[in-house]
Amino acid sequence: MKEIGYYNGKIGPLDEMTVPMNDRVCYFGDGVYDVAMTHCRRPYLLDRHIDRLYRSAALVRIGMPVGKDELKKLVGDLIGMADDGDLLVYLQVTRATAPRSHAFPRGPANLWLTVGPRKIAGREGIQSVITVEDERYYFCNIKTLNLLPNCLAEQAAKDAGCDTAVFHRGERVTEAAHSNVHIISAGKVITPPTDNLILPGISRARMIEICAEEGIPVEIRPFTLDEVWAADEIFTTSSTSLCSRVGKVDHTDRGMKDPATFRRLQDAIYADFYRQTETE
Amino acid sequence: MKEIGYYNGKIGPLDEMTVPMNDRVCYFGDGVYDVAMTHCRRPYLLDRHIDRLYRSAALVRIGMPVGKDELKKLVGDLIGMADDGDLLVYLQVTRATAPRSHAFPRGPANLWLTVGPRKIAGREGIQSVITVEDERYYFCNIKTLNLLPNCLAEQAAKDAGCDTAVFHRGERVTEAAHSNVHIISAGKVITPPTDNLILPGISRARMIEICAEEGIPVEIRPFTLDEVWAADEIFTTSSTSLCSRVGKVDHTDRGMKDPATFRRLQDAIYADFYRQTETE
Repeated sequence: MKEIGYYNGKIGPLDEMTVPMNDRVCYFGDGVYDVAMTHCRRPYLLDRHIDRLYRSAALVRIGMPVGKDELKKLVGDLIGMADDGDLLVYLQVTRATAPRSHAFPRGPANLWLTVGPRKIAGREGIQSVITVEDERYYFCNIKTLNLLPNCLAEQAAKDAGCDTAVFHRGERVTEAAHSNVHIISAGKVITPPTDNLILPGISRARMIEICAEEGIPVEIRPFTLDEVWAADEIFTTSSTSLCSRVGKVDHTDRGMKDPATFRRLQDAIYADFYRQTETE
Repeated sequence: MKEIGYYNGKIGPLDEMTVPMNDRVCYFGDGVYDVAMTHCRRPYLLDRHIDRLYRSAALVRIGMPVGKDELKKLVGDLIGMADDGDLLVYLQVTRATAPRSHAFPRGPANLWLTVGPRKIAGREGIQSVITVEDERYYFCNIKTLNLLPNCLAEQAAKDAGCDTAVFHRGERVTEAAHSNVHIISAGKVITPPTDNLILPGISRARMIEICAEEGIPVEIRPFTLDEVWAADEIFTTSSTSLCSRVGKVDHTDRGMKDPATFRRLQDAIYADFYRQTETE
């Protein structure tokens, strides 16, 4: 199959799959998710994505309906059914199926998976971003399905002819609509701390480890819009795009002033992705 | 039928209804909703609820798939199919059905309705509430399906043996998990302004009108937790509970000191509900 959907044991072509109208996702966005990429049918950092899914679920008090090993096996089975080897694996759990009521019902959580073709983004692309006041909730550390503000910001970016939106709370830059944001300044990577204003990105965490391996200094601290304007480089990390350069902010040329450091880091990140997925 | 579900023209028992897995509600909570109550099969303030649904949709840039008159007719048809005359009518619209992607896809919005038995809450109940720091987004004026923080707060209230949760941003009281909150102080109703921190409740708006009819003074301004502690009365308004008294806040006796004013207002609100639904 090309796009595969899974819901509580049922498997089929994604666009033919249905879910109960009373799944609480339909009324409250009451669930959490995670996304991992594969290459050569091998998922990249899958254990970390599964760990984060369980952590997200625990933070919103959803009991996972399967164990981690069972979930990993299921992901493997679906990857095996796919037509491609380069895939996006989407994992989701919603609280329950029950008549609409804000308080939690009894009943097991629902497990969702989708698997479909997606290649990791190329490393040559240069993003143009807009900046948007971050009016989201203070649960941004949890990968929940309450993503309407992210969709609105992303669409605002597209309407402006740009690729994505970078959020800021006042002066502080938080993250992008679906990636983490970092800057390089004086040869040093600066990345925000993992508080409740940003998602603790797995690509961000791996990027920090790779910086250590490469001898690139990293400073973990909040940074401001002014620092973005002045940065030598600006880049995003995410599971689907790994490490992607930003060349324009609010239609003005920014960053792109330390290609040596950026390319060294980006090459090492891509090399890690291919090393972990192309070899047994 | 007892609980009726409607989705894009399909009608059936709610617990047998399904929706596409790729409805964007499933990935992003990408939709808006509204709720109206009926008595004697007549909806209360339906035009206002429908107007608000269209306003919510416009604020998140969802194009309504039907006109207001068509929607009203549809609601009437479903009410006619229900077993009861006392009903909760739930209306929802989601952006589209499409492969997961933050930016808006083309394609029509999806229309959802449910109709099921529910009597308006009795007027004698006295609520016990907890207070919870309001960590929600700054889109609280829009009735979206991003309601996970509301669910978490409501469940925290239930876990504490209470009825619901009242949010506050720092000192400022905003609203409850699924109702607006007001106080009575020195014979005057104090209710927060309709900025982006609270839902512009239809029951709140009608309450203000009824205060004018009853000669009860109303002050529209933010109020604080300290003012709640000291208030003569504390009450909530919502479409399902109309006007409900609060007698305990964080397990401490509060309010309940101006029954004359509260009962005068509550009686007038209930009378309005029955007058509009029991007569042709």
